[in-house]
Amino acid sequence: MAHINENFLSLKQSYLFSEVAKRVSAFSERHPEKKIIRMGIGDVTLPLVDCVIDSMHQAVEDMAKKETFHGYGPEQGYDFLRTAIQEYYQQEMGVSLNLDEIFISDGAKSDVGNITDLFSAENTVLIPDPVYPVYVDTNQMLGTKIVYLQADENNGFCPMPPEQGADLIYLCSPNNPTGAAYTRQQLKEWVDYANRYGAIILFDAAYEAFVSEQGLPRSIFEIEGAKTCAIEFCSLSKTAGFTGTRCGYTVVPKALTAKSEQEKEILLNQLWLRRQTTKFNGVSYIVQRGAAAVFTQQGKRQTRENISYYRENARMIGAALTEKGIPYFGGINSPYIWMKCPNGMDSWEFFDFLLENAAVVGTPGAGFGNNGEGFFRLTAFSDHESTAEAMERMKKIL
Amino acid sequence: MAHINENFLSLKQSYLFSEVAKRVSAFSERHPEKKIIRMGIGDVTLPLVDCVIDSMHQAVEDMAKKETFHGYGPEQGYDFLRTAIQEYYQQEMGVSLNLDEIFISDGAKSDVGNITDLFSAENTVLIPDPVYPVYVDTNQMLGTKIVYLQADENNGFCPMPPEQGADLIYLCSPNNPTGAAYTRQQLKEWVDYANRYGAIILFDAAYEAFVSEQGLPRSIFEIEGAKTCAIEFCSLSKTAGFTGTRCGYTVVPKALTAKSEQEKEILLNQLWLRRQTTKFNGVSYIVQRGAAAVFTQQGKRQTRENISYYRENARMIGAALTEKGIPYFGGINSPYIWMKCPNGMDSWEFFDFLLENAAVVGTPGAGFGNNGEGFFRLTAFSDHESTAEAMERMKKIL
Repeated sequence: MAHINENFLSLKQSYLFSEVAKRVSAFSERHPEKKIIRMGIGDVTLPLVDCVIDSMHQAVEDMAKKETFHGYGPEQGYDFLRTAIQEYYQQEMGVSLNLDEIFISDGAKSDVGNITDLFSAENTVLIPDPVYPVYVDTNQMLGTKIVYLQADENNGFCPMPPEQGADLIYLCSPNNPTGAAYTRQQLKEWVDYANRYGAIILFDAAYEAFVSEQGLPRSIFEIEGAKTCAIEFCSLSKTAGFTGTRCGYTVVPKALTAKSEQEKEILLNQLWLRRQTTKFNGVSYIVQRGAAAVFTQQGKRQTRENISYYRENARMIGAALTEKGIPYFGGINSPYIWMKCPNGMDSWEFFDFLLENAAVVGTPGAGFGNNGEGFFRLTAFSDHESTAEAMERMKKIL
Repeated sequence: MAHINENFLSLKQSYLFSEVAKRVSAFSERHPEKKIIRMGIGDVTLPLVDCVIDSMHQAVEDMAKKETFHGYGPEQGYDFLRTAIQEYYQQEMGVSLNLDEIFISDGAKSDVGNITDLFSAENTVLIPDPVYPVYVDTNQMLGTKIVYLQADENNGFCPMPPEQGADLIYLCSPNNPTGAAYTRQQLKEWVDYANRYGAIILFDAAYEAFVSEQGLPRSIFEIEGAKTCAIEFCSLSKTAGFTGTRCGYTVVPKALTAKSEQEKEILLNQLWLRRQTTKFNGVSYIVQRGAAAVFTQQGKRQTRENISYYRENARMIGAALTEKGIPYFGGINSPYIWMKCPNGMDSWEFFDFLLENAAVVGTPGAGFGNNGEGFFRLTAFSDHESTAEAMERMKKIL
């Protein structure tokens, strides 16, 4: 008699985006004449940049001819892409990586989810609240003990290490959903904490390309000591609009270890390699060719233009909120604006208020954790016209 | 102090293909003048068919324009592809599936590997020997109890149900590495067994497109009763040469349940949906467009031509072995020929003999399990010229 992984039964159903969709659709039926502006889901809207398109057309052609056809590639990704990422870390962040510390994947969500395969269910895991729900859900599937890090206005949504130790620590900076970004000094405290307790930091850098303030770290490996305590996940979804193209990468330093039951040091790089070669077969050749184009001079210039476009939206949203005296976080190093709901409204009250009176859709902060209550997430991924229109509508009713 | 998943320590290092590579490279250094013919790794060599190429070029263009750009897609895959697969099952195999029983993935290896997430480590798992090594490795990572099904010449490498019960059962038909295919009657016995014991059959149909004998099942769902006891994995890798393009699909019937600790029936379709929406973000839009083209009339015709090409290679290999009186399995419903090593040689002895005397590379059967000892796998994925040349060389020395 087959038995299930019992941990699945402790998962909460995720009603956030389905509930948002339900309310929007009901509003739309009642007011078919109103033009709804969607600033809820964190998905890009600009098309892929030219050099990525060219590179993928070329790769499709490669697949059409016997001489240039590509069958199975290395599970860890092609060297042409790993080398490009290695150079990116060196040039942009001053971080030296070995080629075999870089693993290409179909996106950060897969790797963030699958990384739990490597760890014991006996670990105690620190997870910020509020945060990207995948960290909590995947740890509940494994059955680890979760301790929440309280992120709130007092700590600027950048929680710092607790008194007691821990085994695994999830950090996301710049943060989804709050847009808050750790300083170098703050990350150094986390790295020191992790090294002191033998903990592993699982660092989600998916929004690194949005960091605009000088001196803020974009990789945990900019911090001294991180190579003995951190794994970094990154993605081209937000960097280059790859949400539907699917490519990411994960860095597992060769110096990084965790303990076996007999307290032997086990290399996590080897464990992840074994996991990926067993349960994964690499990313499409065509997609990897497109991804490599992102890291060329032309690709970096073109994707930076797109990010500047989204940044201008974030600036507009921030300016509107400032004008109305509404406190918010994020927006400077992130495509997300995390605003306080006005007049003491809770997250869903404000959602309804904004939808009914301005036909603008955002995401209720309460959907990201208990500490998200009373907050609201707006994204900068619309176009200028819709963003400007949404801000005009919001200013009228706030 | 972070602790690892202790089960990783029980994994055997997989030396098979690295050992093959090492010996080939040593031979090549000693005999730089010899032209080595590789019939070892099961990777396709023909380029993607025209209509797949056209469809992917079009999809790349879609990604270049704001109006047709695709961001995040559904984790389960686009309806245009799921509908195509639904029709394929109906038309080719007479199997009716609901759209939400079909999940698109980046390949069968990922899904076969990740499916263990759904199950308790307390399950007892039946795995044929010899077989595709991923089943064993992923179950060792989870820590289930593995019982081997003895596949050998006596049962034509198609082991049948044992006396005692089990919880999970891996079947691969047509089989990798032996090329053996279950009959309808044999699969019916497995389905009845699984339904009797409440076991789940994990059915790997990656080679279904190579079935050429009339009446042989290509899907487990052709068998009455399978929807209450089976999950099916399939892939376009061998069907349409997608080994480097990456697309597969998994069918989890809505009627399929496994038990919770409290013996409640839990829907596995819902569990897999939760797993995929949490740890996966869908397959590249471009790849899904290419995959959908495989299922058009034109796509089916073009991919069938490629399969016929490989089949002719299999026929040549079989004819050469028959001429030399060497027993073999497979080759008729499979791109693999599973030959008995001549003159009582063991798998690696024959590997060396063939390499040294004919400069032909195959895969030692012992690498797929204990019962593979004394056997040798040749693949039909080379071109006609190399296959013919390899057979001429083999015939001279056998």
